[in-house]
Amino acid sequence: MKVIEKVSEMQKWSEAERCAGRRIALVPTMGFLHEGHLSLVREGKKSGDRVVVSLFVNPAQFAPGEDYGSYPRDLERDRLLLERERVDVLFHPPAEAMYPNGHQTHVEAGPLGRFLCGLSRPGHFRGVTTVVAKLFNIVRPHVAIFGLKDYQQFQIVRRMVADLHFDIEIIGHPIVREKDGLAMSSRNAYLDGRERGAARCLHRSLKKAALLVRQGEREAARIVSAVKEEIEREPLARVEYVSLCDPCSLEELEAVDGEALLALAVRIGKARLIDNTLLKA
Amino acid sequence: MKVIEKVSEMQKWSEAERCAGRRIALVPTMGFLHEGHLSLVREGKKSGDRVVVSLFVNPAQFAPGEDYGSYPRDLERDRLLLERERVDVLFHPPAEAMYPNGHQTHVEAGPLGRFLCGLSRPGHFRGVTTVVAKLFNIVRPHVAIFGLKDYQQFQIVRRMVADLHFDIEIIGHPIVREKDGLAMSSRNAYLDGRERGAARCLHRSLKKAALLVRQGEREAARIVSAVKEEIEREPLARVEYVSLCDPCSLEELEAVDGEALLALAVRIGKARLIDNTLLKA
Repeated sequence: MKVIEKVSEMQKWSEAERCAGRRIALVPTMGFLHEGHLSLVREGKKSGDRVVVSLFVNPAQFAPGEDYGSYPRDLERDRLLLERERVDVLFHPPAEAMYPNGHQTHVEAGPLGRFLCGLSRPGHFRGVTTVVAKLFNIVRPHVAIFGLKDYQQFQIVRRMVADLHFDIEIIGHPIVREKDGLAMSSRNAYLDGRERGAARCLHRSLKKAALLVRQGEREAARIVSAVKEEIEREPLARVEYVSLCDPCSLEELEAVDGEALLALAVRIGKARLIDNTLLKA
Repeated sequence: MKVIEKVSEMQKWSEAERCAGRRIALVPTMGFLHEGHLSLVREGKKSGDRVVVSLFVNPAQFAPGEDYGSYPRDLERDRLLLERERVDVLFHPPAEAMYPNGHQTHVEAGPLGRFLCGLSRPGHFRGVTTVVAKLFNIVRPHVAIFGLKDYQQFQIVRRMVADLHFDIEIIGHPIVREKDGLAMSSRNAYLDGRERGAARCLHRSLKKAALLVRQGEREAARIVSAVKEEIEREPLARVEYVSLCDPCSLEELEAVDGEALLALAVRIGKARLIDNTLLKA
């Protein structure tokens, strides 16, 4: 596996691969890899001839006071995991290369960035779209793989790709869960033993909602209430939001009719955890 | 000359040319071409093996009430002019292709977009950076040529290219002037005979400033006053701004020391005209 830190070297490598007729798949990550990331890499192996994994903890998507400084990092372990998956390139640029002196241009997500996590994390999706646009221009992939745990991010990136005419296919890959249902996340590392137990309430609440819909419930307010109730039965958990919304526009729904996205964010200890599921009426 | 209207066809053409080892130069225009544009095309011929001229009157860079609807258009004449210059591709997409349904992503220029024309045209540079990012992703040039009459636009595009890591060289091409000094512009078509005569005051005022600096004047306030005075001697002209600023940051200067940009915008009849020059102390 090649490890590339320089932007120009990455661009050169990609141009040569493209012109040799090879299809490049990109898996953008912030590192501290888990099975969820590795499943994206495997999807990348299927959809491209070459897989590039980028590892960059993007300062622009963290607000002051968020966990940029304490975000877990372990480059050596990540490198070994990616070697084992036979990744072709690990792109690992320093922050100064990604945000050159005098940096001032941003890519702004539109209304899609204002719902759900956008409400409590203003500026977050602007940071995401900006860094993803950079990565797309540097790696120039044919296809990029995003995990559906960050469902809103996936939709925003898809929108950006269409709007700015990036010639890139965006694939959303299903959430990978621990045995007890907790969605895999680098931030699960923040949880101590008791909190880890408490975190099972996220998936439990999603399953409860799915059951309600299967039993015929259609009213969004009642489903959202039931989900909140389920989470709040767990004393260590604080609900940030629970939203039942249109899977494309992310606008809140009054009733489930066809497909609906149930998305939530919950704080447990130092961790802010998100999860979601598609409900079908 | 190939005329391409479809985004995907343009992308395909460019990828094939790149992979054949040919260097692509892009000249982005809003059409109604004049000698200024054609000099950009000739610069493009020198800097690339293939020249693509895009012709798109970009609605997003006009505010409501500005001249989007009346902006002069003459596709047939433009086509002939470009044929004659042996341009390889005229890329002429319809607005629905450039702004697909549900469009909501924008590229935001930072502080550079707030000075000069940014003050009186809020949103203008956001429209410019957004459409230029689109064009770069569609045409994928190695080099792009911009006219220096739109000096602020040139600096903003350069900044965007550095910040978003577009692998593209940006060339600024000197202003082309009519015999009497008026900078060529598609908007000169708005001027009637008397107004056309009056418009000579822009270049005259720039020359006056250069003379003052050669004579030893360094104080910005005095130079700006002299420029305004020169323009205001012309009864048909209304100064929108006159600014003496740093050529890179566009921040206003108190004194000329080294290189300074003198930039101005003037309204004459229905036309809003801009011009600039670099002053050297």
